[in-house]
Amino acid sequence: MQTQRVIRQVVSNPLIAVCQLTNTHDKNRNIEKAHELISKAKDHGCKMIFFPECADFIGRSKDEALKLAEPINGETMKTFRQLAENYKMWISVGGFHNKKSEDILPANTHVIIDDNGQIVIQYDKLHQFNIDTPKVRLLEREFSSAGNQLHPPVETPVGKIGLNICYDVRFPELSYFHRQAGADILAFPAAFTVPTGMAHWEVLLRARAIETQCYVVASAQYGKHTDTRSSYGHAMIVDPYGKVVAQCSDREGLCYAEIDLNYIKEVRQGLNMIGDRRGDLYTTYYKQKFPTEGVDATFADKTIPASSVFYRSRLSFAFVNLHPLVPGHVLVSPNRVVQSIKDLTPAENADLFNTVQVVSNVVLEHYKAESSNIAIQNGADAGQTVPHVHVHIIPRKHKDFGDDTDNMYKELAEHETKRPQQTPEQMAEETAIYRKLLYP
Amino acid sequence: MQTQRVIRQVVSNPLIAVCQLTNTHDKNRNIEKAHELISKAKDHGCKMIFFPECADFIGRSKDEALKLAEPINGETMKTFRQLAENYKMWISVGGFHNKKSEDILPANTHVIIDDNGQIVIQYDKLHQFNIDTPKVRLLEREFSSAGNQLHPPVETPVGKIGLNICYDVRFPELSYFHRQAGADILAFPAAFTVPTGMAHWEVLLRARAIETQCYVVASAQYGKHTDTRSSYGHAMIVDPYGKVVAQCSDREGLCYAEIDLNYIKEVRQGLNMIGDRRGDLYTTYYKQKFPTEGVDATFADKTIPASSVFYRSRLSFAFVNLHPLVPGHVLVSPNRVVQSIKDLTPAENADLFNTVQVVSNVVLEHYKAESSNIAIQNGADAGQTVPHVHVHIIPRKHKDFGDDTDNMYKELAEHETKRPQQTPEQMAEETAIYRKLLYP
Amino acid sequence: MQTQRVIRQVVSNPLIAVCQLTNTHDKNRNIEKAHELISKAKDHGCKMIFFPECADFIGRSKDEALKLAEPINGETMKTFRQLAENYKMWISVGGFHNKKSEDILPANTHVIIDDNGQIVIQYDKLHQFNIDTPKVRLLEREFSSAGNQLHPPVETPVGKIGLNICYDVRFPELSYFHRQAGADILAFPAAFTVPTGMAHWEVLLRARAIETQCYVVASAQYGKHTDTRSSYGHAMIVDPYGKVVAQCSDREGLCYAEIDLNYIKEVRQGLNMIGDRRGDLYTTYYKQKFPTEGVDATFADKTIPASSVFYRSRLSFAFVNLHPLVPGHVLVSPNRVVQSIKDLTPAENADLFNTVQVVSNVVLEHYKAESSNIAIQNGADAGQTVPHVHVHIIPRKHKDFGDDTDNMYKELAEHETKRPQQTPEQMAEETAIYRKLLYP
Amino acid sequence: MQTQRVIRQVVSNPLIAVCQLTNTHDKNRNIEKAHELISKAKDHGCKMIFFPECADFIGRSKDEALKLAEPINGETMKTFRQLAENYKMWISVGGFHNKKSEDILPANTHVIIDDNGQIVIQYDKLHQFNIDTPKVRLLEREFSSAGNQLHPPVETPVGKIGLNICYDVRFPELSYFHRQAGADILAFPAAFTVPTGMAHWEVLLRARAIETQCYVVASAQYGKHTDTRSSYGHAMIVDPYGKVVAQCSDREGLCYAEIDLNYIKEVRQGLNMIGDRRGDLYTTYYKQKFPTEGVDATFADKTIPASSVFYRSRLSFAFVNLHPLVPGHVLVSPNRVVQSIKDLTPAENADLFNTVQVVSNVVLEHYKAESSNIAIQNGADAGQTVPHVHVHIIPRKHKDFGDDTDNMYKELAEHETKRPQQTPEQMAEETAIYRKLLYP
Repeated sequence: MQTQRVIRQVVSNPLIAVCQLTNTHDKNRNIEKAHELISKAKDHGCKMIFFPECADFIGRSKDEALKLAEPINGETMKTFRQLAENYKMWISVGGFHNKKSEDILPANTHVIIDDNGQIVIQYDKLHQFNIDTPKVRLLEREFSSAGNQLHPPVETPVGKIGLNICYDVRFPELSYFHRQAGADILAFPAAFTVPTGMAHWEVLLRARAIETQCYVVASAQYGKHTDTRSSYGHAMIVDPYGKVVAQCSDREGLCYAEIDLNYIKEVRQGLNMIGDRRGDLYTTYYKQKFPTEGVDATFADKTIPASSVFYRSRLSFAFVNLHPLVPGHVLVSPNRVVQSIKDLTPAENADLFNTVQVVSNVVLEHYKAESSNIAIQNGADAGQTVPHVHVHIIPRKHKDFGDDTDNMYKELAEHETKRPQQTPEQMAEETAIYRKLLYP
Repeated sequence: MQTQRVIRQVVSNPLIAVCQLTNTHDKNRNIEKAHELISKAKDHGCKMIFFPECADFIGRSKDEALKLAEPINGETMKTFRQLAENYKMWISVGGFHNKKSEDILPANTHVIIDDNGQIVIQYDKLHQFNIDTPKVRLLEREFSSAGNQLHPPVETPVGKIGLNICYDVRFPELSYFHRQAGADILAFPAAFTVPTGMAHWEVLLRARAIETQCYVVASAQYGKHTDTRSSYGHAMIVDPYGKVVAQCSDREGLCYAEIDLNYIKEVRQGLNMIGDRRGDLYTTYYKQKFPTEGVDATFADKTIPASSVFYRSRLSFAFVNLHPLVPGHVLVSPNRVVQSIKDLTPAENADLFNTVQVVSNVVLEHYKAESSNIAIQNGADAGQTVPHVHVHIIPRKHKDFGDDTDNMYKELAEHETKRPQQTPEQMAEETAIYRKLLYP
Repeated sequence: MQTQRVIRQVVSNPLIAVCQLTNTHDKNRNIEKAHELISKAKDHGCKMIFFPECADFIGRSKDEALKLAEPINGETMKTFRQLAENYKMWISVGGFHNKKSEDILPANTHVIIDDNGQIVIQYDKLHQFNIDTPKVRLLEREFSSAGNQLHPPVETPVGKIGLNICYDVRFPELSYFHRQAGADILAFPAAFTVPTGMAHWEVLLRARAIETQCYVVASAQYGKHTDTRSSYGHAMIVDPYGKVVAQCSDREGLCYAEIDLNYIKEVRQGLNMIGDRRGDLYTTYYKQKFPTEGVDATFADKTIPASSVFYRSRLSFAFVNLHPLVPGHVLVSPNRVVQSIKDLTPAENADLFNTVQVVSNVVLEHYKAESSNIAIQNGADAGQTVPHVHVHIIPRKHKDFGDDTDNMYKELAEHETKRPQQTPEQMAEETAIYRKLLYP
Repeated sequence: MQTQRVIRQVVSNPLIAVCQLTNTHDKNRNIEKAHELISKAKDHGCKMIFFPECADFIGRSKDEALKLAEPINGETMKTFRQLAENYKMWISVGGFHNKKSEDILPANTHVIIDDNGQIVIQYDKLHQFNIDTPKVRLLEREFSSAGNQLHPPVETPVGKIGLNICYDVRFPELSYFHRQAGADILAFPAAFTVPTGMAHWEVLLRARAIETQCYVVASAQYGKHTDTRSSYGHAMIVDPYGKVVAQCSDREGLCYAEIDLNYIKEVRQGLNMIGDRRGDLYTTYYKQKFPTEGVDATFADKTIPASSVFYRSRLSFAFVNLHPLVPGHVLVSPNRVVQSIKDLTPAENADLFNTVQVVSNVVLEHYKAESSNIAIQNGADAGQTVPHVHVHIIPRKHKDFGDDTDNMYKELAEHETKRPQQTPEQMAEETAIYRKLLYP
């Protein structure tokens, strides 16, 4: 009898719950409904629950929306954090009206709260929906401030989640950004309009899942919120092969699915789209800052200590100079050890020079310079001493090298070892200054 | 009576026909079927007909495929050209086994033929499908050479068509490339496998249409071609709002739809996704060559005559120098007049330095140099004389400026007007040399 | 060269055009748009065009609708007939407000017009849509009269078309009725609401096609007609295997597909669902009248001349009696020659006794009788003389056989040949009377 | 703080789990996988789990299938029952090879087991899939016996479930049968082929849900079972509004959804399709037996005791006669009290006379008669004494009433009270005989 060889299965694939809500201007109603759904998700053993955009409220007018908006430490977020802690459940608050100050419109912020009630990430919506047709008019910029920063995915007990909001789903580059940065799941909390929802919602979510080979989790507002605003609903979960594995009925409620990280692996092994991409012909540059603290850099066969590295992008790093020609003379290199610019990939090239721009802007601003020399000694015959591509950024001021500005080159032509050398302390201090400017 | 005020409608929206075929190794069978469908499309007044990938044949083995492959001027393409001319119809031959030489595997080439039987564009498939799972194994690289060039859309009587083939549909950046370059229609001739077809085909085609707001025309192989190869079919036409407006039945045949350029305009006005994109945070660089002949360039307030411009990318151009420091000392600038690198967009930045790389590679190769100096004088205090960003590329050889390589900088520090000036003839000659290398 | 053996293909599969309209209360606007689309369909060589429900207008109120309604011989239908004749095109006017008299609400009538401008069939919508939910309220019975008759499919140059309107699509029995009666195409002109459309429209149309293995042609109203009424659109053509082969974009216009009767045959051979149906366990009875004139009936080894047959249902016929016991004593038999009731299929059984009811009602009414004897002599031992099931209907009046009503049986017990025989003229006359009552 | 007014929600909507399996000929493998999934479903708190058709095995050949088949009390079903009991979970074993005897092919039986391990219903598949096309050949009749009985839905803790198997989904009348009989859920365990699955599966399941306004639960075989047999998968749950609320990924596993009986109610109130049906024009007769024991019948103003009622169909009942003219003279009446046949609905008419046929067959067989008189006295003037339609069935034998068979009528013409009256014991005995024959 088979039942006798019972090998108790370990449930390795956590269940998640995705919400569909018909939120209104009544914040109490909304949070009570949220509470009810969290409780239900808990009963089904879910590890994480996903609320849609406008998880706090949907105002009946711009004025009401502005009036109802709260800061991140307001009552509404406190309640969500409390619920997360009480129910020991991770919560994605897909979007709330984040009042950062009186002076600017609230951001549309997607917040993830852990099961201790701590906020682990805040993402301000990047792409604003501005539709203005006979059928629908909704200009998000009129009542919300756009975000300005790409955030890499965040670790949770159900996998690494890449955060998005609603309209972001139309921009495949953002999803690919998350994929490249290690996402298992893309979250798209939304409040899609009915006309665009029925034309595009499911197709775009599935396409994002197929292209990134991630789970896509799309919580949604549904139905009539105010006299003039309705949402499409169709909250759903899509698996990494692009299949809708759960979907809410046409009303408030939950749908459920397992998240299986092994399945992601299997799908990616089956079809290696990252590998098949033609990075030699096109590449997407993402303006992105990485932490520098405690991370040494490799510079040819040398190590640049973390204390000298003041900036990191995805593929490059910037560091201070042992022998600066002038104050602010810094260097930018690709992460990968590459001797010649001819060996840089298009992605590295794009990243390197966009990083040069970012660094240059800050250094010049700091030294109140308006000019700079950007120089690469590409190859031994061009004076390259360290066999790892590095771009010199040399701030310039009026007559800093005498009457002829090009005198600088004469100085540069002197071998750098003849120039005075900075102490480690000086370099660490310089690093600290730039970091502060670059990571405000 | 309304019928009396008959105002004869001009049919401004041409009808197109999209094919579904079950091609085999029998080239005669295939071309006869093609002929039959062209004739039918003609009867319904179609202006253009779209054939799928493998429009010539599907071999029963790699060996057979290699044996059956023909060059572009072989019998099969001659027949398609003849049919185009005879029926006065534009034809997209979605993919054929293009035998370019005995030494390399055939390319997978999408060809468009005009109604005079002339070939107007050839696109070699860029993304190769290499699936190797328990369910399917199909490694395209084993029997086909990949393309190496992005082609902008081509003008036809039904609109500007961006060319793709099959697996390309999984890479949204390629579709966006066509959109940026002015496409009205994206063509995706295909021979999708059954398992991937039923999971992904329609979703990806519709997503591409929605994101680019173009018509998507997807001809397809269908059914059982050989004992071991079957295709998914579902040849279809998607409108720029993402709707499937025509689809073939499960067998060989045609489907029909109107192409309405006004509808494209309407859809794009309704939702301006190009405008809503966050180009400040991410941007895709496309390695792309543009024609230079006859096109002058703007360099600050000057005009660089076409005879001095030897390379153009999407956002940059390269030109020869009036006062070169050494032979091969050339310049690269952004198309847009921008004084400082701080004003470059991420897209321009990426394009500029990828162009520097492309140009540098060729110049160094030509002058048999292995090193180069790359330098930007960014701002007046850094020696910038022309207020338009320009990157110096200076090839370097062993001891070209004496024992100390950095002596070059001393020379560069001398004002350029002190250096000998090239004649226009010399410059045109130099331009011609580089062009030949860059546009082989 | 293959093009030299040109065998001109005969286009055997006619193209049809299906309309999507945004009709309003303005009948002139609507008919002009109709005209424009007919003209366009003609240019593409279509043989038939399908207009949606409310092809005449959509009123802004019930009162306006009643005021705008016209009879079948009104101006609107005249114009459609004129257009059919002028353009030599068959037209399905999917639904118009058919004012039959001042006293009753207009019917919702689907009309097919041939290419001479003649009306070949009128179908009054059977199933009325009465939705009354928080989301939608639309009670068709408040402004329209329901039809009362099943119509078998009608011959057209594109195939036999079974007529339906809109909400009928939810009732698979009606579609199956058309299939059984020989339909190639089911037409579903519609004006679906947006909420029900996005939830059900495509699924139901495709299911009807799959189950009946017919083409499904669904013209549709689309968009905003009045301040309070909008329609879902998605006019489409589905092939007999259930695939959407054409669909209109989200606006007024046409979509096109070929109708291929061979494909229907192929699909039906592939999967014989009619044969696989469990007619022994369930069967649908359709109340349906068939013409009797000129059609003789088979009664065991005899022929009953058409002049004696006064009613036909799908599986039964009713005829007058050579030796009636009383005036109005008539007989009903199954079409199939079956001796015993044990050999009747469930479908024949249901049809036979529903026919008995229909006939009995009319005969009793005519003879002003309120009672009847219904009797079957099933088998020789029960007095059956003709080996073909026949049901006696014998009208009864008070004391018609004397004081004991059961005296009738004594008369019936006398052999029928002892009773007086009617002349052929008498029988024909009696037949004529009943026919008139049954086919008013 | 809202979290303080915690009102613990009662989870009224049970979760169900639906399986997707890749069963093979290896029964051990299959049951172990089943065990694993039951355990997982239990962990997520599911009340019921649904296994697909071929839940026991899929043979590599007809011979192997016949060899592996077991009776209902074999090891496989014992194991399923044990698992149900151990895990306290209801199980639908969607289909197993039910070896009823050595002489006939196994039935394809869908079994529901309660959480005590008791079998509560067995349904033998009615519609056999017999496809024979170039693409697929699968003749179910060659390896399986078809069922012969409609079963009304069965009560479970998640709702009333109407049982079907696979191909049954193509026959809307069967689903409607369940709906009429009170179903909340339709179960469609399946092993669809890939080609028909991708063309029809989801559409048909959704159509069945929409038309019946029931949940549809469709467990499924998936992937490659043997060298020549693969299944489509796409196990899913559809809500009563037709939405796919859960679906399995493309591999073995589970999907989950809540069953909410309130939502069914809400959907049915929103759109009353049962009420909108044109029962006056079409009606489906279902051959169905209902229990008679302990259920009295109403006959006009009288009560016929259960002990006299020997047969019940959906709309009719048959009973023994107090004053039989001959042995076996019985009566059949509609359930509804209706005086005249003119008041019968088409459904009652069809049911009444199909019931007459069923009863007549059995009575004649029992009395070894080959003939019968079927008679209705319709109205007082026709001798009707009880104002409730009743059909006389009078078995007839050779010369049973003397030389002239029609003498019977003379007897019938005598008032029934003059005939001898049966005792209640005699009638109960007669009832018992017929019941035994009709409910074997």
